[in-house]
Amino acid sequence: MEITQRPLVALLTDFGTRDPWVAAMKIVLTSRCDAEVVDLGHEIAPHDVFEAALFLDFAIEPYRDGRKTIVVAVVDPGVGSDRRIVAAAKGSLVLLAPDNGLLDPAIDDSWELRAVEASHLFERGPSSTFHGRDRFAPVAAALASGAPFGSLGPALERAALVRLPYEPPRVGVREVHGTIIAIDRFGNAVTDVEVSLVGELRDWVARVGSAEIGVSARTYAEREGSREPFLIVGSRGTVEISLARGSAADLLHLDRLGPVHFHRVGADG
Amino acid sequence: MEITQRPLVALLTDFGTRDPWVAAMKIVLTSRCDAEVVDLGHEIAPHDVFEAALFLDFAIEPYRDGRKTIVVAVVDPGVGSDRRIVAAAKGSLVLLAPDNGLLDPAIDDSWELRAVEASHLFERGPSSTFHGRDRFAPVAAALASGAPFGSLGPALERAALVRLPYEPPRVGVREVHGTIIAIDRFGNAVTDVEVSLVGELRDWVARVGSAEIGVSARTYAEREGSREPFLIVGSRGTVEISLARGSAADLLHLDRLGPVHFHRVGADG
Amino acid sequence: MEITQRPLVALLTDFGTRDPWVAAMKIVLTSRCDAEVVDLGHEIAPHDVFEAALFLDFAIEPYRDGRKTIVVAVVDPGVGSDRRIVAAAKGSLVLLAPDNGLLDPAIDDSWELRAVEASHLFERGPSSTFHGRDRFAPVAAALASGAPFGSLGPALERAALVRLPYEPPRVGVREVHGTIIAIDRFGNAVTDVEVSLVGELRDWVARVGSAEIGVSARTYAEREGSREPFLIVGSRGTVEISLARGSAADLLHLDRLGPVHFHRVGADG
Repeated sequence: MEITQRPLVALLTDFGTRDPWVAAMKIVLTSRCDAEVVDLGHEIAPHDVFEAALFLDFAIEPYRDGRKTIVVAVVDPGVGSDRRIVAAAKGSLVLLAPDNGLLDPAIDDSWELRAVEASHLFERGPSSTFHGRDRFAPVAAALASGAPFGSLGPALERAALVRLPYEPPRVGVREVHGTIIAIDRFGNAVTDVEVSLVGELRDWVARVGSAEIGVSARTYAEREGSREPFLIVGSRGTVEISLARGSAADLLHLDRLGPVHFHRVGADG
Repeated sequence: MEITQRPLVALLTDFGTRDPWVAAMKIVLTSRCDAEVVDLGHEIAPHDVFEAALFLDFAIEPYRDGRKTIVVAVVDPGVGSDRRIVAAAKGSLVLLAPDNGLLDPAIDDSWELRAVEASHLFERGPSSTFHGRDRFAPVAAALASGAPFGSLGPALERAALVRLPYEPPRVGVREVHGTIIAIDRFGNAVTDVEVSLVGELRDWVARVGSAEIGVSARTYAEREGSREPFLIVGSRGTVEISLARGSAADLLHLDRLGPVHFHRVGADG
Repeated sequence: MEITQRPLVALLTDFGTRDPWVAAMKIVLTSRCDAEVVDLGHEIAPHDVFEAALFLDFAIEPYRDGRKTIVVAVVDPGVGSDRRIVAAAKGSLVLLAPDNGLLDPAIDDSWELRAVEASHLFERGPSSTFHGRDRFAPVAAALASGAPFGSLGPALERAALVRLPYEPPRVGVREVHGTIIAIDRFGNAVTDVEVSLVGELRDWVARVGSAEIGVSARTYAEREGSREPFLIVGSRGTVEISLARGSAADLLHLDRLGPVHFHRVGADG
C-alpha cells in the first residue's frame, strides 16, 4: 500500500476555528496539491509561541519516517515584520514555522534548515497580514507536490535560529528546580522535570508556593477516591502534579511558567 | 471508485484540542498506515464515559457497510489500571475502546468482540499514562493495514463487558419515566424516551421539576416567535424539550441525568 | 498526480463538536463516497447566518479551480420549515446551503444555481430535524460520487435566493459609514470598509462610539509595544481596528454589527 500513500500536511495554529483563517488555509492546500490535510490543533493561546513549541515537540515525537509529512505551525505575533519563515527537514518530515523559537524544542543539529525566501511560491492576498494563507500554505502545497527542500531558500545553521526564552531545570545534590510548563485540560500541572532527573518519585517531595506534594503514583487509577494531589510521570515523560478526577491546578492555584522545587527525602538522606 | 477506497480511522476522545494528545495520536496513525483520519469529536466532558457512549451510538448509526472503518474512542478514567481494551466488529466497522461501558449502547449481540491483548502491537511511550498514543493508535493502524480482527486477542462474550450504569425508561399505563441524557449546544434537553413509547406527542405532557410542558411541535420553525418551551422529536428519535431560538435548559433549569416524567392527556383519558 | 485526486467535501456548521452531529454527517459521507472530508469550522455562533455567510465568503476566496470540491454549509434556524436547500456551482466548486442568505456574499451572477429537490437522494432519519445528516450529507456524497449538478433540481435565478439583511458601506465625499462585521479571536474589530474605499489609511480617522482612532500601521509588528489602538488592513482586505498583543474590542467596547465612521483628515482637506 506504500506506493499510493499521499503526502500529509498537518496544521498547528493559534487561529481557533471560529474565524475563517484555518478554513482559508485548507482551501489553498486542498485546491493546489494532492496532500491529505489534518488538524494538529488550533487552540494554542493567541500569540503563545512557548505553548506552541512544546505542543509541536510532543506531537511529532512518535513520527515514523516514510510518508512525506509537512507540519505547518503558525503562531506568529511578528507577522508582517521582517521575521523569517524557516523550514526544517529530517528524513521525510518537514516543519514550516516563523523564526520565533517555535521549532526550538523539536529540532537539534541533525535537522537540515532553510530560510524560506522562494517568494515566487508566495501568493498575494488582499493584505500583508495573513502569511498563513498567502505564504505558509502555498509553500506547503509546493513541497507536497514535489518541490525540493533545497529550493525553499538558503541553508541556515541551527545557531542562526531564534531561541525560546526558557531555562531548563537546574539540578542540585538533593534538589531539582523546574518549571510548570503547562496546565492541561484535566488540571494536571505538567513540569519540565524529566523522570530521569529524579528517579524513584516516592523519594521526592515537590513544593509549589506553600504546598508540598509528597505522595506519588504510577497510574491515575491508583489514586482513585483520594482527594489529595500526587506526583506522577505524565505522558511527556516528565513529572506532573495531579488529582484523581479533579484539577490539581485549581486546588493548589498553580500557574503555567511558575516554579516548582523538588527535594529528595529518600532513606539515604 | 470503490477499489481505491482507503480505510478510515475516526477519533472520539475527551482530550480537547489545546493539548497535544490528539495530535500525537494522528502522527502515530498517519505515519504508520495509509488510512484517512477524521475527527468525530474531542470535546466530550473529561472522563464522562456516559456522554461518550451516547455520542458514539448516535454517530455510527448511519454507517453503511463497505469501507473499512475503525472508530477509536478514548474516554478512559481508568487508564493505567488493569481495565481491558476491547474491540467490537460488525461487517466492515470496528470499534476500539476501553472496557468501561463506552461501547454499551452502540453494540448488541450481533457484534463480534475481542479483548485487545496483542501487546506486540503496543508501543512504549515515555510513560504509562497515554494509551491513546501508545496502544489505541498503533492497534488502529495495524487494523487499517490489514491485521485480522481475530489477531487482537481472545474472543469475549457480550455479557463479559462492563455495562453503563443507566436505567432505560420505565413505562406505565399512561406514563413514561425517563431521563434527560444530554443538554445540547442549543440548550435542547434530550431525553431517552423514544417516540415509539409515546406515539402522538400532542397527547402528552412532560413534567420536569415544577414545570409542565404541554405544547408540541413537528419542527423548530413551527414555534418561531414563541417564548414557550415545547416537545419535539429530536435528531436521535427521542423526545426533546426545546425553545425557539433560546435555551430550554437554561429557562427551566434542566440538568443532564435529571428525571423527566411524561403523562398522557389524550381524549381517551 | 492530478489523476488520482479525490473529491473534497468541506464542512461548515454551527453544530460545535461536543454534540455528535458533525460526527454523524462524517459517517454518512465517508461510508457513502470516496471523498476526503475536511472541517472548515463548526464554531459559528448558533443560528448566526450572517457570521456563517462572511466565513464562507472568506474561506473559499483562494479556491483554485480543478479539484472537485463540495462545501456543505449548515447554519439553519429554519430547518424543518419549507425553506429550500440550494446549490451553487462555478467550475469545479459546489456550495450546498439552506436558502437563508448564507451563500449571498460568496456568489454572484456567474454561478449556476439549483433548488435541491432530488428527494430520492435524501435519507430518512428517525426525526425531521436533522437535515445535515439526512439531506445535506447524502446529497454531497452523491455529487462527490459523480451525480451531475443539474440532477439536483430545477435551475434558479440569483434574484430568487434569500438575501442577507445587511447594508454595504455608504460613501460620502470625505467620509465612509461602515459596519463592524466581526470581532476576531485576537480582539481585532473587522469592518466591511475595503481599503479601496479609503486609500491611504494614514489620511483617515475612525470613530466608534466616543473613541477616535487616528493611528495606522502596515503590520502588527510596527505597533509592538504601544498600548494605543490603530487601523490596519486586515486579512479580508478591509480596515480593522487593532491593538498590539491585546484586544481592541475589549479596550474600546466594540460590538459586532455596530457602526463605524471614517472621516478623511489628509492635507488636501
